[in-house]
Amino acid sequence: MSERVLSMNLATLRGAWGLAEAVEGCLKQGITTISPWRDQIKAVGMEEARRIIAANGMRVASLCRGGMFVADTKAERQSALDDNRQAIDEAAEIGAGCLVLVVGGLPPSSKDLNESRKVVAEGLAAILPHARAAKVPLAVEPLHPMYAADRACINTIDQGLDLCEQLGDGVGIVIDAYHTWWDPNLAAAIARAGRMGRILGHHISDWLVPMRDMLLDRGMMGDGVIDLKAFRAMIEQAGYQGPQEVEIFSRDNWWKRPGDDVVRIALERFNTVC
Amino acid sequence: MSERVLSMNLATLRGAWGLAEAVEGCLKQGITTISPWRDQIKAVGMEEARRIIAANGMRVASLCRGGMFVADTKAERQSALDDNRQAIDEAAEIGAGCLVLVVGGLPPSSKDLNESRKVVAEGLAAILPHARAAKVPLAVEPLHPMYAADRACINTIDQGLDLCEQLGDGVGIVIDAYHTWWDPNLAAAIARAGRMGRILGHHISDWLVPMRDMLLDRGMMGDGVIDLKAFRAMIEQAGYQGPQEVEIFSRDNWWKRPGDDVVRIALERFNTVC
Repeated sequence: MSERVLSMNLATLRGAWGLAEAVEGCLKQGITTISPWRDQIKAVGMEEARRIIAANGMRVASLCRGGMFVADTKAERQSALDDNRQAIDEAAEIGAGCLVLVVGGLPPSSKDLNESRKVVAEGLAAILPHARAAKVPLAVEPLHPMYAADRACINTIDQGLDLCEQLGDGVGIVIDAYHTWWDPNLAAAIARAGRMGRILGHHISDWLVPMRDMLLDRGMMGDGVIDLKAFRAMIEQAGYQGPQEVEIFSRDNWWKRPGDDVVRIALERFNTVC
Repeated sequence: MSERVLSMNLATLRGAWGLAEAVEGCLKQGITTISPWRDQIKAVGMEEARRIIAANGMRVASLCRGGMFVADTKAERQSALDDNRQAIDEAAEIGAGCLVLVVGGLPPSSKDLNESRKVVAEGLAAILPHARAAKVPLAVEPLHPMYAADRACINTIDQGLDLCEQLGDGVGIVIDAYHTWWDPNLAAAIARAGRMGRILGHHISDWLVPMRDMLLDRGMMGDGVIDLKAFRAMIEQAGYQGPQEVEIFSRDNWWKRPGDDVVRIALERFNTVC
């Protein structure tokens, strides 16, 4: 059995640390794979970010994030495409395994989710040549249906895979347990993703009951209701061998704790309940 | 074109009124179809509830609600079945068109949604003979996936219809716009429900952005992002001719307003944006 790898999505450590401190804090406990966010790169500057990553020998699983293709005006959509091409370049510069995309929900003036889905497909098609040339795979992340209005109109694994089929090479998906655990078609959808060879990432966290905030109250693995071992079994069965990435947005809990504690507990839980 | 009928789910008026006041308040503005909740019946007693309904010539679209089949112990599951049979009797006593069921999510000790789904199917099968004998159709309500853990493990229209196929006559579904609007398969699922003749109810409200509470911050029609006219077109296309039922849980807004205002505004919105 190959050794399981934990990737630390640096959003998890956002409360305590910037890029340099996060890399140091991860390394101290043996974590060598990370996914930074664009604002964390920007805060130190690209050159310094590259230096931090290279000097510490970090592997960059992905860059978070591009997307947000939907908008009311043509100018805004064009601006989103430009920003996505910029994000692709940044992902290439830090050697990221892929660029994670949160595709966008409804623009302010629309109630038409199907139109949004069309705009997203068009946006992906528009930036795909740039991504292919830069050798940066685009990783569409299907988000939980509770974000359909304001974050992502792609809400199931199958929807993401339909997009991949439509667009061809260079596009895959991130499968996040928090976003997809409820799906009645989960097992079949993960198997399909595996057959298609499109799993570019696997995120873990937990679904708390009760959940106090729809965006910023994700749980540490083991504190909620998701059967993460069963989830991993499906992912591995589908042939995915990449890291499991801890991504926890938690304004009132984990973001308030010392970074060392968050890393330590994430590792403990990764080894016991995931 | 037949006249559209608004049914008032009495949860919408819960903040201001009990059964008697709600019936009076609805009648005053010409609403003659309602769906009461069991606790609202219990608060006045079944005999008085029947009298209020009959004396005012109210049509009862449904009784809310039964369900909650999942539990950790056999004794608790049995108790849930007994309670559901009691709810069926109550629905028959007030002449309700159906009994709405919120089926239950995960019991405290389980992380296995598929097991919950099996328990729900078994529970429905167990109470179905009683429902058929009482001539009370069982109306399974697929709830939004954000309630999978704590309220309902049936989260899409298609899942509900699969249950109907499995169980045979006497079971249908309620299609609630708030719970289902995000579904990428929405149009096909509603059409399938129509072909199967299983649409027992259609609930309306709106999805607010931002939403402040996952349970108690539903919006009045027109205040959110759901295209309710497009939704109605699909429902009518599927052959459904029953009432559209306004069901709004809104602890900090609509439940704090005078009942007369809630009824008036619901009627206005029903006539303009639904």
